[in-house]
Amino acid sequence: MTPGPSSVPEEVLLELARPVIHHRSAEAKDVITEVAGGLKEVFQTENDVLILTASGTGAMEAAAVNTVPPGGKALVLNAGHFAARWGDICKAHGINAVMLDTEWGQPVDPAQVAEALKQHPDTVCVMGTLSETSTGTGHPVEAIGKIVAQTPAVFAVDGISGVGAMECRADAWGIDLLCVGSQKALMLPPGLAFVSVSPKAWAKIDAFDAKTFYFSLKAARKKMKEFDTPYTPAHTLILALRTALRRIKEEGMENVWQRHRIMSEACQAGIQALNLELFSSRPAEGLTAFRIPEGLKDGDIRNRLVERFGLTTIGGQGKLKGKIVRIGHMGYTDELDVVAALAALEMVLNDLGYEVEPGAAVTAAQQVQLGRKEVVSSK
Amino acid sequence: MTPGPSSVPEEVLLELARPVIHHRSAEAKDVITEVAGGLKEVFQTENDVLILTASGTGAMEAAAVNTVPPGGKALVLNAGHFAARWGDICKAHGINAVMLDTEWGQPVDPAQVAEALKQHPDTVCVMGTLSETSTGTGHPVEAIGKIVAQTPAVFAVDGISGVGAMECRADAWGIDLLCVGSQKALMLPPGLAFVSVSPKAWAKIDAFDAKTFYFSLKAARKKMKEFDTPYTPAHTLILALRTALRRIKEEGMENVWQRHRIMSEACQAGIQALNLELFSSRPAEGLTAFRIPEGLKDGDIRNRLVERFGLTTIGGQGKLKGKIVRIGHMGYTDELDVVAALAALEMVLNDLGYEVEPGAAVTAAQQVQLGRKEVVSSK
Repeated sequence: MTPGPSSVPEEVLLELARPVIHHRSAEAKDVITEVAGGLKEVFQTENDVLILTASGTGAMEAAAVNTVPPGGKALVLNAGHFAARWGDICKAHGINAVMLDTEWGQPVDPAQVAEALKQHPDTVCVMGTLSETSTGTGHPVEAIGKIVAQTPAVFAVDGISGVGAMECRADAWGIDLLCVGSQKALMLPPGLAFVSVSPKAWAKIDAFDAKTFYFSLKAARKKMKEFDTPYTPAHTLILALRTALRRIKEEGMENVWQRHRIMSEACQAGIQALNLELFSSRPAEGLTAFRIPEGLKDGDIRNRLVERFGLTTIGGQGKLKGKIVRIGHMGYTDELDVVAALAALEMVLNDLGYEVEPGAAVTAAQQVQLGRKEVVSSK
Repeated sequence: MTPGPSSVPEEVLLELARPVIHHRSAEAKDVITEVAGGLKEVFQTENDVLILTASGTGAMEAAAVNTVPPGGKALVLNAGHFAARWGDICKAHGINAVMLDTEWGQPVDPAQVAEALKQHPDTVCVMGTLSETSTGTGHPVEAIGKIVAQTPAVFAVDGISGVGAMECRADAWGIDLLCVGSQKALMLPPGLAFVSVSPKAWAKIDAFDAKTFYFSLKAARKKMKEFDTPYTPAHTLILALRTALRRIKEEGMENVWQRHRIMSEACQAGIQALNLELFSSRPAEGLTAFRIPEGLKDGDIRNRLVERFGLTTIGGQGKLKGKIVRIGHMGYTDELDVVAALAALEMVLNDLGYEVEPGAAVTAAQQVQLGRKEVVSSK
């Protein structure tokens, strides 16, 4: 239960063990055709979702470098380790990044974004995050998108650990470039990245020749019109993606979001029932981060969860190293996984001498789950 | 039997169906540690081989953009569709590419490279190809490497369809940056790319800040020291790579090369016994290209091979479209696969009214195989 790579359904894993087909065959084209449709549904967009063979970071770089010319201005909504990566990408490409800092664990304030855009009317691209994996925070992307939409700037969103785990509507919310990775709520191993591109973004992209080859979105657009990719893609992963997207379609996008919402609320309730402190004031729905209580070490809790229950969670990154534990509940997970993880946490905390009432977290989680309408299991 | 993606051994496919481990775990580090050693053996280098989650083209872009600053000069040994890609990558990044053209199907002449380097003493990087997949030509990389080594330039080689299929010794031959993809002779699905970097190349890379983020070789070097990668890698493919590299180790690198040499010579002999014309005057050892005889169409031969025998080959690319057929024999293939492919070709040609003597190609191939010392089967 890490916030990615997340669990991969068995039927998806088995796809990966199939003999490799040729990536320029009619069969491969059929697969991309179906996948292209499924991705549009997940992204909630009418625009093409381009497929890159890369980590999610590759999709972020593609969004930045194709949209903002060197010397152009970007407004980076800097509220965590991965948001800061937007700034690093800009720096590497000579993009003038204005960093709008928000305390880690707090959501970006849309009013501050509006103010910053007034101060920097020449902003070409606002770069934000749907779900900040390093802090477990969900940002108000809908509200920010509506502000950016009223300006000449485009809105690029790192949805790597968010899309498929929390409600996100690219077109309705004014997200011009939405970047997603395969290894989070899409239930695949890592290796693929996706980016949707709005007409407003294409106008900026078509206005100059970006200094990039492999990540050229123009090249990807041209090939996507034929349901193809410019270079040999990781097409066994694309084949497996088809199966994962069929699962999502069968469950229904709204149901998928609802399942994650309930898992998230249940996990939060459980953590709080143990008198542990949630790290984020606006938790993301694909993971829950809590502060490590005084007297305990990050490693103590996580190692013991692995040793006793084979349960993998993850600690903090960067300045949060040793300060938080993050529990992922995205993709191929359901309410009972959350209950089980909370039960394990209760036992491990007691083992470590941090006394908690056995069942307290589990009960709190169940109460959340009982209060919500039934959601079809993902398994 | 295409020149990539090539067949993947069953035991490697099954690795891909294993549940996903976390990419920052001790287990993942152990896998990268073992893989790092195996890649050094395959590349015949003492230098680190960096792992990128990308197509082979990503490794080529990484080699180019990290080594040659914008405005710097590159000498592109342009002898085919993929060699020309070096030029396209340079163009995208404002690198001044001097194109040294060689007729498609002919090997690059080392004397011409020496002459060009005299004319362009400010060349930062010579960009060549070990096995040009579009023409089935093996280039004299050893001889070229020895010439480049005497100049201040570095030698970057696209070994995507060559390394693991034909003898290639990065260090001994003076190859400073050797780029390889996973889906060729390394017997994996596509999705990973590798690049080895010599100290001579690092000196150029360390001399400036390349305008790239995801493909930063400095970032990859830093993480590789801890047997890690800068961004979430396609680590199920890395896990499978371990199994593929174990196979290569077990067979022995020299034996692997010898097996490909025999498959290549046998395939050439068979093609010629059918009075078909080899396309290349210096065939690569991982694939064989022949000209389509007058009166037949590319599609006729290849479609019939698929329909009657389920055997996939591939046609020409770019200006060779419709003019050649390419048969791959790299990675998880052995002498009998070549014999079977030639038998299928004989039957299909006769079906299509192009009369050939049944058994002629097969016999010619067997004679080559009988004349060489026994090679351990790859299966």
